[in-house]
Amino acid sequence: MADHAITPRATDYSQWYLDVISAAELSDYSPVKGSMVLKPHGFALWENLRDDLDRRFKETGHVNAYFPLFIPVSFLSKEAQHVEGFAKECAVVTHHRLRACEGGVEPDPASKLEEPLVVRPTSETIIWHMYGQWIQSWRDLPILINQWANVVRWEMKTRPFLRTSEFLWQEGHTAHATQTEAMEEATRMLGVYESFAREILAIPVIPGVKSASERFAGADETYTIEAMMQNGWALQAGTSHFLGQNFAKAFDVTFQNTAGVREHVWATSWGVSTRLIGAVIMTHSDDTGLVLPPKIAPIQVVITPIWKGEAEKAELLAFADKVKAALSPRFRVKVDDRDNLKPGAKYFEWERKGVPLRLEIGPRDLKNNSVFAAPRFGGGGKFGIAFDGIAEAVGQKLDAMQADLLAAAEERRDARTFRPGSYAEMKDQLDGGGFFLVPWADDADAEATIKEETRATIRCYPLSAQGDAAGKTCFYSGKPATHMALFARAY
Amino acid sequence: MADHAITPRATDYSQWYLDVISAAELSDYSPVKGSMVLKPHGFALWENLRDDLDRRFKETGHVNAYFPLFIPVSFLSKEAQHVEGFAKECAVVTHHRLRACEGGVEPDPASKLEEPLVVRPTSETIIWHMYGQWIQSWRDLPILINQWANVVRWEMKTRPFLRTSEFLWQEGHTAHATQTEAMEEATRMLGVYESFAREILAIPVIPGVKSASERFAGADETYTIEAMMQNGWALQAGTSHFLGQNFAKAFDVTFQNTAGVREHVWATSWGVSTRLIGAVIMTHSDDTGLVLPPKIAPIQVVITPIWKGEAEKAELLAFADKVKAALSPRFRVKVDDRDNLKPGAKYFEWERKGVPLRLEIGPRDLKNNSVFAAPRFGGGGKFGIAFDGIAEAVGQKLDAMQADLLAAAEERRDARTFRPGSYAEMKDQLDGGGFFLVPWADDADAEATIKEETRATIRCYPLSAQGDAAGKTCFYSGKPATHMALFARAY
Repeated sequence: MADHAITPRATDYSQWYLDVISAAELSDYSPVKGSMVLKPHGFALWENLRDDLDRRFKETGHVNAYFPLFIPVSFLSKEAQHVEGFAKECAVVTHHRLRACEGGVEPDPASKLEEPLVVRPTSETIIWHMYGQWIQSWRDLPILINQWANVVRWEMKTRPFLRTSEFLWQEGHTAHATQTEAMEEATRMLGVYESFAREILAIPVIPGVKSASERFAGADETYTIEAMMQNGWALQAGTSHFLGQNFAKAFDVTFQNTAGVREHVWATSWGVSTRLIGAVIMTHSDDTGLVLPPKIAPIQVVITPIWKGEAEKAELLAFADKVKAALSPRFRVKVDDRDNLKPGAKYFEWERKGVPLRLEIGPRDLKNNSVFAAPRFGGGGKFGIAFDGIAEAVGQKLDAMQADLLAAAEERRDARTFRPGSYAEMKDQLDGGGFFLVPWADDADAEATIKEETRATIRCYPLSAQGDAAGKTCFYSGKPATHMALFARAY
Repeated sequence: MADHAITPRATDYSQWYLDVISAAELSDYSPVKGSMVLKPHGFALWENLRDDLDRRFKETGHVNAYFPLFIPVSFLSKEAQHVEGFAKECAVVTHHRLRACEGGVEPDPASKLEEPLVVRPTSETIIWHMYGQWIQSWRDLPILINQWANVVRWEMKTRPFLRTSEFLWQEGHTAHATQTEAMEEATRMLGVYESFAREILAIPVIPGVKSASERFAGADETYTIEAMMQNGWALQAGTSHFLGQNFAKAFDVTFQNTAGVREHVWATSWGVSTRLIGAVIMTHSDDTGLVLPPKIAPIQVVITPIWKGEAEKAELLAFADKVKAALSPRFRVKVDDRDNLKPGAKYFEWERKGVPLRLEIGPRDLKNNSVFAAPRFGGGGKFGIAFDGIAEAVGQKLDAMQADLLAAAEERRDARTFRPGSYAEMKDQLDGGGFFLVPWADDADAEATIKEETRATIRCYPLSAQGDAAGKTCFYSGKPATHMALFARAY
């Protein structure tokens, strides 16, 4: 199956990415242009991300709901910037029946819809239509709803996990009585994403604000977390939007405040997607294949008994099951008891699939009542673990591996975050990748010129760096700096 | 909000159903014809069903994956019966871009797709296309994949949960080396559905086989679980299909067996949907509103402190939190601390929302270190529970309530399952609802005639009753019986 070689990163980073995905059996191409298949190992990864995020959303007071897949085209048009942003990449449903034709079936002209429907690219419009029916008074606020769903944005150039026509995501949509509350919500959810990325994905993201040209279509402010991939490119890993009253005005959603006066409702929306899997792959994996943070690995520990002959097999499988039983309450464990594969082939497979810890069990280990542990990454080599206290020892090792991944990613990011003294200096350095933190005088035209000349964009104005802009001059125009901007090439 | 009256069942059963849904805030109508919005309370119910089912699927060796939403129309056509079954109710995507037009946007003619895409009504075709690429040898089998997804079947007459154009479901798709294995899988999953319905939904379903006319389009055999609603109508609650080699042949999926010979792969598919929520509502609810089996209730216990004045409020809320802390490890608990609602209004709301157990806490209860428990259903009235051992007592009560619901549903079903001696007798009785178990000589034309004359259909040939057919004559034709058939009017 997935036994072709993995191209080294140094040879061809893009091909390496595709090879890692294929070797780990995370996804597959589909016959539908732009859509991918999430294979079981890839979907299990998504389930782990989703479950942890879902818990965080519920802990911050949100509930899940589900809104229709189809959006009438007239809804999209109601918010001017929104339709501008999404009209060019929509799947449009125009008929509701097929009829036989020569060689197959075709849309039945008699079933043409009066109003075409768009497959949701995002759900602000349909949700704010519903909120209009649910919100009457301040008592109905806030509404803190999240939706797990598939969305479609037609893409010509696709790349698994990073850019596909259909993808899975979550979209939070909240409604508030005041601007302050909505702003707090937007930044709160950015914080949830930031800590999730750090604690669970071991990705040290940079939280910041988007420049006006990079804002979500229909937002007053877009917050983002930006991650650095191993090639020094940036990947936008999640966004949280302060939508002001734009959608409330487009859909005429008002509430009666405590003083009895009707006001428009304030809104946020925020989302992350299966793109995060791409971020995980490109942050941690190596030339051997997938590397996963233990907290999200579908299999955290694989036990590989090594036997000769049936009698030994029975003994070793029994011991393997005993080890599994000791670990299962705390970890996701698999015993690889396949007969038709040699140990080396098994090791090869599980390494490519990113299983953090392999426990080898041979006759000598059985005698010693211990196992031989081979960590997927981090150096230090194999080491023995006594059966007594094995869950504790495995837990410590996995925690250390999780921490090591984060530390390594932080080190890479910091080592490749530059503060060029001039635009020329950044241009010279850009081909080598990296983040470029510079004083910047906000100017959409200059931003566009830089993008055209260098393919680098403002990833964000990092929240933690904004204090540094005061008194500085723009690295591009020489004007007084308004922000500290983080430039990078990005996926 | 949801404060209008609930129509009694005896007055108008259909309106009662809609009223219960609205009063419990389970779903809402959407501006997209045929689609519904799952509101937070309804979606939480779905999450509980889904999580329990997902655990059962994984325990029986299945893994989740995700396949594309869009299916090329040419794929649908490959299996003749399949396209026949689904072509008439498809959402068809024909364009991938909108352009501005007078008064809004319209599909851009320049973006017309070469091949139209259908929004999946079910995923056999796209999945078997992929299986064709994944399966080479007997080593690749079985494949035991499940998908949680949204699907679309265009419906003109819709009814929340029971019949909507878009709905949420799971679809299992498995591939096997032998007919026997595939048959075993199809019946195993029917068994999973049956025990899930009984143990979790408290619905005593009847497992059986569909007659040829009621089979899934593309199946060799369709198994079903049929539930009886309170009005005596049947509701198909889940199906499991033995697909033979039909899809393997349509998509040319073969494997090399252990003898080195290529054979077509054997298949099953099986699914349940948000329809199950409709089944729960119509099995258990009453004229007061929603009744939920404790095991799936989004809120199992609501604690309602009743105070006068701020000092009492603080004391009672502290006690309520203490009770919640004692119960939370085992149950889904909510403290209703709203200031702006009187206790009666709170009780009214939680009863309509189907919360199984309400714990009232007043100053006297605080003094006695106990609570006053009001079960949502089952008679017996309110009773006191001491704080010490409260989790145990609540657990026992909820278990008893769960068992009571199942017993009541079984009693209703058995009391209304009739064995009419003749077709005339069944016709006389049909308006009163009920299941009609009769000896039957398999005959699609007779079946169609009965359906036309009575609106009753063969729900299934119940697995447990088939031994009784031997030696009997058909209740309709007088010919020797081939099956015992269960007739009923159905949703």
